Amino acid sequence: MIANVKSETYAQLEKVMEAFKQREINRVFYVACGGSSALMYPSKYFLDREAKTITAEVYSSNEFIHRNPATLGEKSLVILCSHKGKTPETTEAAKFAKSKGALTVSLMFVETAPLADESDFTINYSWVPAGGTEPNPEIYNYAIFYRLAMGLLYIKEGNKKYEKLLTSLENLHTVFEKAEKQYLQKAKEYAQANKDEKIIYTMASGANYGMAYSFAICILMEMQWIHSHAIHAGEFFHGPFEILDKDVPFILLKGLDETRPLEERAEKFLKQYGEKLLILDAKDFDLTGIDEEVKGYIAPLVLNLVLRLHAVALSEARNHPLETRRYMFKVPY
Amino acid sequence: MIANVKSETYAQLEKVMEAFKQREINRVFYVACGGSSALMYPSKYFLDREAKTITAEVYSSNEFIHRNPATLGEKSLVILCSHKGKTPETTEAAKFAKSKGALTVSLMFVETAPLADESDFTINYSWVPAGGTEPNPEIYNYAIFYRLAMGLLYIKEGNKKYEKLLTSLENLHTVFEKAEKQYLQKAKEYAQANKDEKIIYTMASGANYGMAYSFAICILMEMQWIHSHAIHAGEFFHGPFEILDKDVPFILLKGLDETRPLEERAEKFLKQYGEKLLILDAKDFDLTGIDEEVKGYIAPLVLNLVLRLHAVALSEARNHPLETRRYMFKVPY
Repeated sequence: MIANVKSETYAQLEKVMEAFKQREINRVFYVACGGSSALMYPSKYFLDREAKTITAEVYSSNEFIHRNPATLGEKSLVILCSHKGKTPETTEAAKFAKSKGALTVSLMFVETAPLADESDFTINYSWVPAGGTEPNPEIYNYAIFYRLAMGLLYIKEGNKKYEKLLTSLENLHTVFEKAEKQYLQKAKEYAQANKDEKIIYTMASGANYGMAYSFAICILMEMQWIHSHAIHAGEFFHGPFEILDKDVPFILLKGLDETRPLEERAEKFLKQYGEKLLILDAKDFDLTGIDEEVKGYIAPLVLNLVLRLHAVALSEARNHPLETRRYMFKVPY
Repeated sequence: MIANVKSETYAQLEKVMEAFKQREINRVFYVACGGSSALMYPSKYFLDREAKTITAEVYSSNEFIHRNPATLGEKSLVILCSHKGKTPETTEAAKFAKSKGALTVSLMFVETAPLADESDFTINYSWVPAGGTEPNPEIYNYAIFYRLAMGLLYIKEGNKKYEKLLTSLENLHTVFEKAEKQYLQKAKEYAQANKDEKIIYTMASGANYGMAYSFAICILMEMQWIHSHAIHAGEFFHGPFEILDKDVPFILLKGLDETRPLEERAEKFLKQYGEKLLILDAKDFDLTGIDEEVKGYIAPLVLNLVLRLHAVALSEARNHPLETRRYMFKVPY
């Protein structure tokens, strides 16, 4: 992404912030499918923790339309996302939300698409395929979700996290560069050791859960055809942990948010009864430049980058390119 | 459960309804772990669809405490559940909710327990182990969740579904008896054919998703040590469906709620590319006595009963009793 596109994204964001100022908002609906949806979870975590007058939901696009929430209306903000702006359910969801009088803001990588036509505002985000170097992570889709959530709360409730976020995002590129150097070789070693596994569970809680979910459904299941399931670290002890054994692989994310004790408890148990473990701990990251007050929120973005390194390494070790599909965009569904 | 215990439950419910009348409520938090939590999902579905002035969340108990929602306060109703009333996280969650001024209502099978001590109101529900005949499904925990959700909305918004629910629940026992006769043999055949499977996915949407989740984590993973993952039928097409092949078993629940088109779409795809399928369709149930307006809400309860038949049959075919555990209540965690 070139410099003027970055300033274009900022201009788009500015317009949305203006719209926030002119409108009463008491409810935020995050609406998307698969990976786009998973990256919205951290923003719901932020709003849940910090918003006094606004409640938030994350729905898969079709569930949103058919569930037809009674609280969806003129005081609702609906944030949607589709990488190519062509996911039919998400376009339909934008149309549906507008018909209810909601303010609709849609994120997409491409400049224009059917989703844009059905939305009040469009924001274009930066992106590179896994394995590439992200030049502008500060305007990657998950960063924009935070900008919107924290910006909204700055405007509506005077929440100051937004200012901390903005300065912190400026340093995200450097944080990413360091994390990449730190984990590139480790990811390759993990991939070599685990390339023949048929199932790999992922686990996290709080702001990080969406990243575990995304890795499970988009990387392992979709792109590598490895069985998976993103287990919530708190739920783990109420059923799922009985599946654990020395030969069952788990990837555990440890973030820096308030739910970290859940992930630490899961880690202790995993280490006692499991052996095939990958523990990615945000405490090991060099987060210089990220404000202390938003580190818990930024950690999942860095965890996601590190997971992407593992995705690339796994695909290479398994000779199964990340682009390989048997159904998606190939057969009708 | 004997008759006077049933009237005791009704008396407890009556007291809670009185408390609803005397209090402003704008937010409901469903807080529990594992299976107890999964059975709350249908009530959130109901509130999402029908409540104009009340929003609802489902959190695993520890996530609830550590996430510490900013909207939790004196206008919050927190509904908790723990079968033996001794789940430490849930007791802690009740204490936490009370400290924030919320109204706390706790469901449990036992008469008294630590959870009861930390709650404003306690409701005792009926229950029998899987394989037993449920004499009072109208006061089983998931029926009580509905009584509370619909009763709340009856009081606060004049929503008439509550009246339909009450008359319908009187007939649930008969519906269950018929479903049991209809599926007992089929469940045994399914178990024989699938007893050696190492992984079985479950899938559903809307009001039924919680039942798919419960079967995945509590029956398959916890009680049978079979790998699993409850896939949302809408999310299926945005990642998970790439895992489908002729040798990958799926259980699909088809309910009667507004999200049924999502489950139908998934069914079509499963039938085209999969072979090891169990489709449980609520349209095949004899729901005589269940009011048309609440059939979509009642369907997951019947689906859950039918799934329990499959659980028992699987455990027998696999010589793996449902009570077998390697960690739960056996080792520290």
